[in-house]
Amino acid sequence: MAIHQKWIYKTRPTAQVGAEHYAYEESVLDDTLSANEVLVEARFISVDPYMRIQQSAKANWEAPHPINQIQGAAAVSQVLKSYHAAYQSGDWVSGYTGWQSHARVHGNELAKLDATIAPVETALGVLGMPGRTAWFGLMEAGQPKAGDTLVVSGAAGAVGSLVCQFGIKAGCKVVGIAGSDEKCQWLTTLGVHKTLNYKQQSEQQIETILQERGGVDVYFDNVGGQISDAVLASLNVRARVVICGQISQYNGGLDTPQTGPRLLHHLLYKRASIQGILARDFTHRMPEMFDKVLPWLADESLVFNSTFVEGFEQLPHALSGLFAGDNIGKLIVKV
Amino acid sequence: MAIHQKWIYKTRPTAQVGAEHYAYEESVLDDTLSANEVLVEARFISVDPYMRIQQSAKANWEAPHPINQIQGAAAVSQVLKSYHAAYQSGDWVSGYTGWQSHARVHGNELAKLDATIAPVETALGVLGMPGRTAWFGLMEAGQPKAGDTLVVSGAAGAVGSLVCQFGIKAGCKVVGIAGSDEKCQWLTTLGVHKTLNYKQQSEQQIETILQERGGVDVYFDNVGGQISDAVLASLNVRARVVICGQISQYNGGLDTPQTGPRLLHHLLYKRASIQGILARDFTHRMPEMFDKVLPWLADESLVFNSTFVEGFEQLPHALSGLFAGDNIGKLIVKV
Repeated sequence: MAIHQKWIYKTRPTAQVGAEHYAYEESVLDDTLSANEVLVEARFISVDPYMRIQQSAKANWEAPHPINQIQGAAAVSQVLKSYHAAYQSGDWVSGYTGWQSHARVHGNELAKLDATIAPVETALGVLGMPGRTAWFGLMEAGQPKAGDTLVVSGAAGAVGSLVCQFGIKAGCKVVGIAGSDEKCQWLTTLGVHKTLNYKQQSEQQIETILQERGGVDVYFDNVGGQISDAVLASLNVRARVVICGQISQYNGGLDTPQTGPRLLHHLLYKRASIQGILARDFTHRMPEMFDKVLPWLADESLVFNSTFVEGFEQLPHALSGLFAGDNIGKLIVKV
Repeated sequence: MAIHQKWIYKTRPTAQVGAEHYAYEESVLDDTLSANEVLVEARFISVDPYMRIQQSAKANWEAPHPINQIQGAAAVSQVLKSYHAAYQSGDWVSGYTGWQSHARVHGNELAKLDATIAPVETALGVLGMPGRTAWFGLMEAGQPKAGDTLVVSGAAGAVGSLVCQFGIKAGCKVVGIAGSDEKCQWLTTLGVHKTLNYKQQSEQQIETILQERGGVDVYFDNVGGQISDAVLASLNVRARVVICGQISQYNGGLDTPQTGPRLLHHLLYKRASIQGILARDFTHRMPEMFDKVLPWLADESLVFNSTFVEGFEQLPHALSGLFAGDNIGKLIVKV
């Protein structure tokens, strides 16, 4: 009899999230299904920075993640048993099934994956939420034009590394900001024109470098905090700032905001804009993105890197690793 | 022989601007004109918050205002002598002629005013830069919709009091934030639905009131600082923030930014936007605004209040009074 493994979200972190906020549980797998339900077994489970936002005590785009429930997450799974006409045993699917080894879900809540198009785990990356965020965030809110200087914070992450490449394809001069020389070197191999390791550059140095390069037309921000202070002080007229994430603030700053310089007056001088985006607003437009991105994956002109962590038991540790900058590209737990 | 009076901008303020940053000069008026030039005598001279931005040591939308020059300003004048075919003695005109009693300018730099349409000093207010800022800032960047809650900071100022009324005409529920009970009472007579005297309400109280009223769809911000902190924490999904001014920051905060809470994460949750605007970007679209606004002035459904200060010698004092909240509506020096 198979074992049903689960990670239960138990206590709300006030600073760094870690294993201490979770409880591991297991039970004998119940494979009973109702009409149209599907039993799936997870193969790849996602850890994403947004999970930490949902752990804040304050409401975000929805109510905080409930305590004593399985941690919500996207996963790529295989079908074990199906009572839904669209699925059969062995099919690859993606769904928001959480941190558990198995899930019983209505077939309508799953999307079937075609392993011949791209590796199935890309449904958690370039062909899933991170890709959607990068594509629509940059193209819709960022409005990149050829010749623009595009600055990307968190540039070596799942979203950031795609934004850099989409920006290059749009003809932008791309500046990628990341947290290690290894990440910066990888970004260079992707064609990023200039990289900045923020751990080796002061805010003032970043500001000076950006201004020497002619200022910033588009800023795609995953990070917030002091990096954004440097970039906001360097905006050009009619610059567009896309706020996709504020990861520097997640471990405590959402409940009790950090302080930083008041810089909104720069927007006035520059008639610049800041736009917050969420991937969920663009879910219905995924076919548009696939039209662009699938050919680039096929001809290998778009690189998508995953960092794999092996083992279901590693999920809480992997999540906390996101905030330590452990990943290059998308962090995925392989189970 | 007439006397040509001038206020010369002499030293850069680092905090509050006042008379000590100016020098009064006078000379015998030179009425020599070249071809197409016009000699005008100022009747109404403007003091505006943006002047303090230009006094910051840092570049804003242009280089800082030069030292040892006549303070730049818009004025409404009468033509004394004209070598330009479009003007004759006695005509009312507006132009950017600065803090001086007389000016010799090329006729193309003036706009003729029709005193039968509206009082000529409205060229410094509802029919000039403040009106343009209010109209295009609200309608273009704010995108107000019927039923929206519109919050206006600096609501009793030249721009703010127009934004409140444009918002009411657009069907918004308007919340005006101002700095005295007298201002709040005046706003109520304009039809503003809810007023808040920020000197009697804490930031937390303002936040609570806004949230109890269902949150904020459009925020037209003239002020920045702690008032904005309260409003930014109360935005609704897809809210639009229009940054027209940050007057709370002008006396020092532009050179050495004040600190405040990092709140950009709210934009992410709410997919909200912040847009900086400057009136100059909409100058070519003034006819659109006149089409809307002139009938409202004619039928008296739009109120525009001017606070007059009498005397050319009062100009520096009047400017510093803007930052003390001396004015209800537009502050104008009558000379």
